[in-house]
Amino acid sequence: MTRVHRPGEPPYGRGGTFAQLPLVLDAEELAGADVAILGAPTDELVTNRPGARLGPQAIRNADYLWGTSRPNMDVGLDPFEVLTVVDHGDVEVVPGYPELSHRAIREAVAGIAGAGPMPIILGGDHSIAHPDIGAVAARLHPERVGLIHFDAHADDAYEEPRLSHGTPLRLLVEEGSLRGEHIVQVGLRGYWPPPSDFEWARSQGFRWFRMDDILGRGIEPVVDEVLADLEGIQHVFLSVDVDVCDPAFAPGTGTPEPGGLQARELLRAVRRIASTVPLAGVEVVEVSPPFDPAGITALLAHRLVLEVLSGMALRRSGGSARPERP
Amino acid sequence: MTRVHRPGEPPYGRGGTFAQLPLVLDAEELAGADVAILGAPTDELVTNRPGARLGPQAIRNADYLWGTSRPNMDVGLDPFEVLTVVDHGDVEVVPGYPELSHRAIREAVAGIAGAGPMPIILGGDHSIAHPDIGAVAARLHPERVGLIHFDAHADDAYEEPRLSHGTPLRLLVEEGSLRGEHIVQVGLRGYWPPPSDFEWARSQGFRWFRMDDILGRGIEPVVDEVLADLEGIQHVFLSVDVDVCDPAFAPGTGTPEPGGLQARELLRAVRRIASTVPLAGVEVVEVSPPFDPAGITALLAHRLVLEVLSGMALRRSGGSARPERP
Amino acid sequence: MTRVHRPGEPPYGRGGTFAQLPLVLDAEELAGADVAILGAPTDELVTNRPGARLGPQAIRNADYLWGTSRPNMDVGLDPFEVLTVVDHGDVEVVPGYPELSHRAIREAVAGIAGAGPMPIILGGDHSIAHPDIGAVAARLHPERVGLIHFDAHADDAYEEPRLSHGTPLRLLVEEGSLRGEHIVQVGLRGYWPPPSDFEWARSQGFRWFRMDDILGRGIEPVVDEVLADLEGIQHVFLSVDVDVCDPAFAPGTGTPEPGGLQARELLRAVRRIASTVPLAGVEVVEVSPPFDPAGITALLAHRLVLEVLSGMALRRSGGSARPERP
Amino acid sequence: MTRVHRPGEPPYGRGGTFAQLPLVLDAEELAGADVAILGAPTDELVTNRPGARLGPQAIRNADYLWGTSRPNMDVGLDPFEVLTVVDHGDVEVVPGYPELSHRAIREAVAGIAGAGPMPIILGGDHSIAHPDIGAVAARLHPERVGLIHFDAHADDAYEEPRLSHGTPLRLLVEEGSLRGEHIVQVGLRGYWPPPSDFEWARSQGFRWFRMDDILGRGIEPVVDEVLADLEGIQHVFLSVDVDVCDPAFAPGTGTPEPGGLQARELLRAVRRIASTVPLAGVEVVEVSPPFDPAGITALLAHRLVLEVLSGMALRRSGGSARPERP
Amino acid sequence: MTRVHRPGEPPYGRGGTFAQLPLVLDAEELAGADVAILGAPTDELVTNRPGARLGPQAIRNADYLWGTSRPNMDVGLDPFEVLTVVDHGDVEVVPGYPELSHRAIREAVAGIAGAGPMPIILGGDHSIAHPDIGAVAARLHPERVGLIHFDAHADDAYEEPRLSHGTPLRLLVEEGSLRGEHIVQVGLRGYWPPPSDFEWARSQGFRWFRMDDILGRGIEPVVDEVLADLEGIQHVFLSVDVDVCDPAFAPGTGTPEPGGLQARELLRAVRRIASTVPLAGVEVVEVSPPFDPAGITALLAHRLVLEVLSGMALRRSGGSARPERP
Amino acid sequence: MTRVHRPGEPPYGRGGTFAQLPLVLDAEELAGADVAILGAPTDELVTNRPGARLGPQAIRNADYLWGTSRPNMDVGLDPFEVLTVVDHGDVEVVPGYPELSHRAIREAVAGIAGAGPMPIILGGDHSIAHPDIGAVAARLHPERVGLIHFDAHADDAYEEPRLSHGTPLRLLVEEGSLRGEHIVQVGLRGYWPPPSDFEWARSQGFRWFRMDDILGRGIEPVVDEVLADLEGIQHVFLSVDVDVCDPAFAPGTGTPEPGGLQARELLRAVRRIASTVPLAGVEVVEVSPPFDPAGITALLAHRLVLEVLSGMALRRSGGSARPERP
Repeated sequence: MTRVHRPGEPPYGRGGTFAQLPLVLDAEELAGADVAILGAPTDELVTNRPGARLGPQAIRNADYLWGTSRPNMDVGLDPFEVLTVVDHGDVEVVPGYPELSHRAIREAVAGIAGAGPMPIILGGDHSIAHPDIGAVAARLHPERVGLIHFDAHADDAYEEPRLSHGTPLRLLVEEGSLRGEHIVQVGLRGYWPPPSDFEWARSQGFRWFRMDDILGRGIEPVVDEVLADLEGIQHVFLSVDVDVCDPAFAPGTGTPEPGGLQARELLRAVRRIASTVPLAGVEVVEVSPPFDPAGITALLAHRLVLEVLSGMALRRSGGSARPERP
Repeated sequence: MTRVHRPGEPPYGRGGTFAQLPLVLDAEELAGADVAILGAPTDELVTNRPGARLGPQAIRNADYLWGTSRPNMDVGLDPFEVLTVVDHGDVEVVPGYPELSHRAIREAVAGIAGAGPMPIILGGDHSIAHPDIGAVAARLHPERVGLIHFDAHADDAYEEPRLSHGTPLRLLVEEGSLRGEHIVQVGLRGYWPPPSDFEWARSQGFRWFRMDDILGRGIEPVVDEVLADLEGIQHVFLSVDVDVCDPAFAPGTGTPEPGGLQARELLRAVRRIASTVPLAGVEVVEVSPPFDPAGITALLAHRLVLEVLSGMALRRSGGSARPERP
Repeated sequence: MTRVHRPGEPPYGRGGTFAQLPLVLDAEELAGADVAILGAPTDELVTNRPGARLGPQAIRNADYLWGTSRPNMDVGLDPFEVLTVVDHGDVEVVPGYPELSHRAIREAVAGIAGAGPMPIILGGDHSIAHPDIGAVAARLHPERVGLIHFDAHADDAYEEPRLSHGTPLRLLVEEGSLRGEHIVQVGLRGYWPPPSDFEWARSQGFRWFRMDDILGRGIEPVVDEVLADLEGIQHVFLSVDVDVCDPAFAPGTGTPEPGGLQARELLRAVRRIASTVPLAGVEVVEVSPPFDPAGITALLAHRLVLEVLSGMALRRSGGSARPERP
Repeated sequence: MTRVHRPGEPPYGRGGTFAQLPLVLDAEELAGADVAILGAPTDELVTNRPGARLGPQAIRNADYLWGTSRPNMDVGLDPFEVLTVVDHGDVEVVPGYPELSHRAIREAVAGIAGAGPMPIILGGDHSIAHPDIGAVAARLHPERVGLIHFDAHADDAYEEPRLSHGTPLRLLVEEGSLRGEHIVQVGLRGYWPPPSDFEWARSQGFRWFRMDDILGRGIEPVVDEVLADLEGIQHVFLSVDVDVCDPAFAPGTGTPEPGGLQARELLRAVRRIASTVPLAGVEVVEVSPPFDPAGITALLAHRLVLEVLSGMALRRSGGSARPERP
Repeated sequence: MTRVHRPGEPPYGRGGTFAQLPLVLDAEELAGADVAILGAPTDELVTNRPGARLGPQAIRNADYLWGTSRPNMDVGLDPFEVLTVVDHGDVEVVPGYPELSHRAIREAVAGIAGAGPMPIILGGDHSIAHPDIGAVAARLHPERVGLIHFDAHADDAYEEPRLSHGTPLRLLVEEGSLRGEHIVQVGLRGYWPPPSDFEWARSQGFRWFRMDDILGRGIEPVVDEVLADLEGIQHVFLSVDVDVCDPAFAPGTGTPEPGGLQARELLRAVRRIASTVPLAGVEVVEVSPPFDPAGITALLAHRLVLEVLSGMALRRSGGSARPERP
Repeated sequence: MTRVHRPGEPPYGRGGTFAQLPLVLDAEELAGADVAILGAPTDELVTNRPGARLGPQAIRNADYLWGTSRPNMDVGLDPFEVLTVVDHGDVEVVPGYPELSHRAIREAVAGIAGAGPMPIILGGDHSIAHPDIGAVAARLHPERVGLIHFDAHADDAYEEPRLSHGTPLRLLVEEGSLRGEHIVQVGLRGYWPPPSDFEWARSQGFRWFRMDDILGRGIEPVVDEVLADLEGIQHVFLSVDVDVCDPAFAPGTGTPEPGGLQARELLRAVRRIASTVPLAGVEVVEVSPPFDPAGITALLAHRLVLEVLSGMALRRSGGSARPERP
C-alpha cells in the first residue's frame, strides 16, 4: 500500500480523501494499515442546530497542502512516514433512521478494528460515540478500555428515547462496553445534564474536569491528572467533541457553549495524550459546516486528527520529540 | 377569542406567534377559529441540506409590522378581519425518531381539524406531508380530498425506508388518503425521481406541470388548468414546498433546484387558488434558515401564508377583489 | 473641472468616490457640474432591519472598473463624456437625531441645487425623501415638481411621530412641496399601508401601479403610462427604493417584500425615464449592506445610478440611442 | 406564579421568552418575582455598526434546552429553583426618537424596580445605561448605588448631542444618579475616549482597569480589586457591554475592539460578582445579530445572564458553591 | 469503462467526482469515453473578486443524489445511459503564473480531445477560454470551429498584458483559432468593453445579442437566431460564464452585472443548443464560492453541465425529447 | 502638511484613507512625513484561499472614529500628534503578473523610503515581503537590517516557481537583502515547511519561536528574547502575517492555522517592539475579506497598525508610557 499523489488530482483542498491519502473502501484491504479514517455523516439525533452530517466532507476539505506529507515541526516527525494511514470513505447512513445508521457505523468500525487499523471516525453528531466505542470495545473484550472524553457536555444522560447525542456514554456503560471508572471527561460546563445524571456518573466512578477546574489549574496539570487516572489501561478511546472549545474557536457546531478551551490548549492536549497512551480508537465529532462561515471549525477538527497522528507516530517511533529548533 | 396586541410585547419580528396572533395551545380552545397555524420543526428525513427544523421559528419572525393587521392591497381585505386565525404553537417532535414525530404531527393536525379550524402547517421538511394530509383526509373520509402540490420534486418515490421527504405522496396514495387523479403537481424539474416513479404516478392518474411547461405557456394558464383539473373536488389540500421557486428566490431550502418559479408567480398563484377552491389544509415546507443568509426564504414563506389567508378571506367574503386603485 | 485618474489611486472598488469621480466637497465649487452625487448615511428611522447608514459606502464600492469611463453599450454613450459629474461626499449626519440629520441633508441638497447640478442622493433610509425632495422643490418653487416613486411601500402613511421611513410622501404633500396629482408610484405590494392611507392618497390625486398591475400588463406599458401621467411636468424627481425589486435581486434592504420587480426591469425603466423626462433630482435608497452577503444589492443601486446618468446623457445629447450592434 | 412548560410550546430556541420563563407584561403582576428580564431594542444612537435593536430577540433565542431548568454545575444550584424570574417582554421603543425610547425604557425599568424584582435589561445599544441605571438609582435614592462596568469603552464622553452610546456614564454622574467614586470600569482599551474625558473621570473618582492591566495581572486579582473597591456599597448595578470581550468571542457587536477578554474570563467574573455583591440591576448590551453570523455573541450574552442568575441564587441561598465533583 | 457506485463511498455531495462518475486521470485511458470533465482552478487573472479557483470543487459538490443516474424529465433520457462520461480531475495549475497554468490547461484539454472525448471544463476564471478553445481548435484545424458565448462581458478586449479574463476572444481570433464570423455572443450588458473593442469585433464579423435585445424579443427567438447564425458549422464550442445570469441567480461570481438572464432561461437555452449543434467543447466558468453564501451559483453551474449532457444525449439518441407527461 | 477633517467627508468608515489621514500620492510630496501607509492589493501567489487583494480597502475601512485623532490610552499619546503620517494610496498592481506587481510594489516602497518616511505596507499576500523588505534593505545598504517576523508559516521555502507567498524570506536572504542571523520568527506551527527548509534556515542562523515555545513560556519572555536577539541592529523591519493569530481572532486569511496567538498578545507585542527597536519598515499582510464575515480580521490589522504607530510615537517622544490611570 503506497501513498501516491497522482498528477492531475484536484489540487485545492478537495473533499477527496483526508490529506490525499489513498481511498481504501474494502475492509479486507485494510490489513497492514495502522490507521483508517472513516466518515460518519449523521445529525438526526442532535437537539439543537443540525449540519454535522456535512462534517466529514468539510473536515477532509480543510487542508491546503498538496500531496501526503505533513511533517510536524513540534515533534520532528511526519506522521505519514511513520504510520500507514488510509481513508476508508464514509458510512452509508440512512437519514432519519438512527438505528440503521448506527448499525452501519458499528459494522464499519468493527470492520476496521477487525482488519487491524485503529479507526479515526469523523462525525457526525456525538451519538455515534455509541457505535464507535461500542465496536472498538467489543473487539477488545474482555480487555479493559478507557475513555478520554473532551466535551462541554457529559453526554451520559438518561433520556427517552435512548438514542441521542446526549446519551452515548450512558448506553456504553449500561451495556458493559465501558466501565465508569475508566472514563475521564474534560471541559464540562454549562447547565446540562441535570444533577441526577451527575449523581449516576459519580456512582459509576466517572472522573471529570469542569472548565472551572481548568481555569483554576491550567490545562497542563489537568492533562497530567487525566493521564494518571488512566495509567495502566491497555486501550484508550479518545473522543473529541469540538464544542469543548469555546465558540470563538469552534462556532460551527450543534450546541456551542461559551467559556471553553482555546484551540491551542486542545491541540497540545490531544497530541500529548496520543503520544503517551495506547489509543484504540479516536473520534472527532460535532462539526456543523452551515454554522461555520469561515470554515475554522472544520480546520480545527482537521488539525486535531493530524495532532493525534503526530502523537501516535511519536509513540510508535519510541523516541522523544525533536522539535525544529534554531 | 380576541386578537390583542399588548403594549410591551416584543416589537421586532419576534418569534412569538405568527403575525402576533393569539397563542392557543389547547386543541379544545380552537373551536370557533377559522384557521390554526402549527409549526412542525422536523428535518431528520432530508437527504441533502438539513435545517428545516428551524423553519417555523424563522417564518414567524419574518415579519416587520406590529399588531395583527395585514390589509392586502390587491384584494382589498384584511384577512384577519374576515377570518379568526390563531397560532397553535409547534408540535413537540422527537429528533431522530421520525415515526414518533410524525405521530405527534398527525395528532396535532387531527386535533386542529377535529376542533374546526383549517390547519396551516409550517415545516419542517416535506416528509410531514404524510401526517399533515393524512390527518386531514382521515377527518374528511370518505369525502374526496384533492391536492395541489407546488414543488420541484414529485415526492412520490418508492424508497426504503419508506419515510423520507421524497416519498409522502406515494404513502398517501397507497394508504388511500388521496387518490392519484385528485393530485396536481406544479413546478417539477431536474433529474429526480426516476422514470419508474413517474410511470407509477401516471398509472395512478396524477397530473403535473413541469417548469418546462410553465416556461412555454406561462403560469396563469397553468393555474387555470390546475383549477379546472380539480373542479368539483370538495376539499383541497395545498402543499407548497418553497423549492418550487428558483434558488434565487428561495436559497434557504434543503434541495434547491435551479430553474424554478419567480416568487411573484407563486404568490399570485396561491392567492388565486385560495380564493377559488375550498381549502381543507395548507402546508408551507422546506425553509432551511442556515442556508438563508439574508432571510429571504423565510420571508417568502411568511408571505405565502398571508396570500393564502387573503385568498381564503376573499372567498369567504363572497365578493370579488377590490384592489386599492388610484 | 477635469476628471483624472491618478496613478496610485487605490484600484479595487474603494469607497473613495463614485466611479472614481473627483471629490468636490465645497458647494461653491459645484458650479459648472451637471450632477453631484451625495451620500446620506442614515437609518435611525427604519422600523425593521437597520444598516442603510452603510449604504453610500457600499454603493460607491460596488464597482470593478478603473478610471472614470463607463460607456453604455445600450445607448452608445459614455455618460461621463456628456455630463460633468462629481462626488460631493456624505452628509455629516447625527446618529439618533433624525431632525438634525434631515436638516443637514436638506441643506446639502439645497446647496447642490443652488449651485446648479442635479443631485443624486445615495441613501440611507427612505425618510430622506423628505429633505431630498423638499430641498429640490423649494429651489424650484413655484414651478411644478413631479415624482416618480419606485417602491414596494407607498411611504405616505400618517404616523406619530411624523418622521419615519414610511411617511415622507405624506409630509411632502402636506407641506406643499409636492402635489398629489404629480406623484406616480410603481411597484406597490404587500400589507402596508392601511386603507386609510390609500384613501388619503386617492383624495390627493396620487396615481400608482401595484405589482399586480405590472404582472398583468408588463413593465413596459406601465412605464408608458407613468410617462404619460407626468407629461408636461417641467421637473421630475425620481425616487428609487431598492425594495421595489424582489428580495432575490435586492436582499440587502430594510423591509424586503417578496414579489417585486426583476433588476432588469427596473434598470431599463429608470434609463428610459431619465432619457425622457426632465429630472430635477434622484435618490436611490434603502441599501442595507449587513443583509447583503454577496453585495448584489449595492451593485444594483450602483448600476441604477449609471443607468440614470446614461439616460440623462442621451437626453442631453439630443439624439436617440445608438446601441452597439454587430 | 408558576413556571410551566406547556406541551406544544415551540421547542427550538424560539424567541418566545428567556429560558421559557413565564411572560408577565403587566408591571403590577411582577410583585413577588425576584428578577424580571426586559428587552430594550434600540440602536439609533450607535456611531458605527447598527443592529443592536435585534439583540433581545437573538439573546432569548440563544438557547437549546427545553423547559425552565438550568442547573449550574459550577455552583450546584438551579437559579430558577432559587429565584423567581419572569420575562417582562420588550419596551415599545420609537425608532429614531431616542428621547421617547429612553423615556419608555426608564418607565419600564422603574416599573420593575417599583414592583420589587431586580431588572435585567437586554440591549439594545449602550445608551440605555442612562435610563436603566437612572431608573434604578432614582428608586433607591438617596442610598448609594455603585456600578461595575465591563466595556472596551469608558462611555463617559462629553459629546453633543448628549445622548449617544458613548455618553451614558457622563449623564448619570452629572444628574447625580451615580457618584464617580462608586464606579469601577473593567476592560478599557483602544483610542477612545480622548484624554479630556479620562481627566474628567479622574476628577470624579472613577476607578478603572484597562485590558493592559488585566494582561499584566490576570483577571482574578482585578476582580478582587473591583470587589474591594465597592465594599460597603449597598446596591450595585452591573453593566456588561459584550464588546469587553475580544471580537473573536463577540463579533456581533457595534464597535468591536480587538484585544479584549476571553468569554470564559468574563463569565466567571460576572458569576463571582453576582454571588458577592448586592445587585440592584443588570444590563447586557450591544449584541448586534447582523454581524454575528454563527450566533456566538447572542449565545454569550444569554450565558452571561444565566451566570448572573446563578451567582445571585448562590448568594441568596447563603451557602457556598457546591460544584458537581467526581 | 464502467460506472460503479461503491458502497461506502462518501454520500453527501462530496467533491470526489462530478455526479460520482469514475475518476480517470490518465489521458490514455480516456479513449472510448464521450465526454471528460476537467477542472481548471484558476483565478489569478480576474480583475475584481477572486475565488474562481475554488469553483471546480464547489461545482462537483453541488449535487444531492447518490450514484450516477440523472434522468432528465424534460428530455426523457438519462444522459449517463446514453453517453460515457468520466471525470478527468483538475489541472495542476501554478498560482500566480498564468502562462504556466494556461499551458497546463491547454495540454490537458488537448489530451482529452486527442483521446476522443469532448471536454467540459469547469472554471476557473474566463481567461481559460484561451487555452480551452485554443486546444480544441488546434485539434480540429483546419475545420471551422464556431463559438456560442454566454456572458455579460464580451471578453474580447485589447489590454496589456494580453492575458486576462477580459481578453480570451481577442487572443483566439488573433491567433487564428476562431474566426470572428463564427462567434455569437449572448447576454452582453453594462459598461465594458469600450467602443473600440466593439468596433474591432464588428470588423471581425462577430454577432452578439445584448440583454436589451433579449428583453425586447425574448430568449427563445434569440436562441433561434444563434442557431441560425451558426448553421453549417461543424464544430461548436459552448462557453458559459455564469455571470450571464443576473446576480440574483449567480451571486457567486467575480464580476457580477445586474440585469441578466434568469437561470431557467439559460438552462433551457444550453440544453436546446446542445441538442441541436455538434458540440466540440464546453466550459462553465467564473463560479466564485467565497461570494456564494448559499451555494446557488455552484448549483446552477452543476445543472448547466447536466443540461448540456442531456441535450447531447438527446442529439446522440437521434430522437426527439419525450418529456415525462401525465 | 496638515491633517484636516473636512466637513462633508464621508463619515462611516469609508475606505478613503487610513484614519482619514491626508492622501499624498506623489512620492516627491512625502518628504517631511514620518510614516507613509501604502496598500499592496495582491493575492495571485496564494496557494489556498484568495482574497487578500481586497485587504487594503478592508483594513482602511475598519475604523469607526471620525477625524484623525487616536489617543492611545495605554501609552498616553496620540500617535498622530507625534508623528506625521500620510496615506500614499495603493500600488497599481497587475492581476496575474506577480513580477510586474512586485516591481511596482518595490518601486513604490523605494519611493517612500527614498523620500524619507518609514513605509507601512498593507497587504496583499505575504509574497510582497520580497519587494517590501528588499526595497527597504536596498535603501539602507550596506547597513544591517533585521527582521521580526510574526507568522504561522516560516515563508522561507525553496519552491519552483520561486515567487510565492511561501518563499519571500528565502529570496531575501539569497539575494543578500537580509542575513539569516538577523531574522527572528515568532508563532510558527503546523506542518509546513518541510524539514529541509528548517535545515536551511538553521544553516543561515535564523532564530524562531514556535507556538509550542510560546505556550510553554508565555509571550512576554519570548518578546524579551526577540528584542535581545536583535539588540544592536540599527534597522528592523517588522512583518506581521495576521495568520500568526489563531483563526478565532483572524478567520479572514488565506492559510489559517489553528493554535495561534490571541489578538491581545500580538497587539501588545508589536507595540512593545515598535517602542523599543528602530523600525525601518512594517507590513501587515494576508487579510482576506471574503473569509471575514464579521470583519474582525481587518479590524485586527487596523489596530496592529495603530499599535505600531503608538509604539513608534512613544519611542520618538523619548519618554516612557503614561497610561491613563485612575
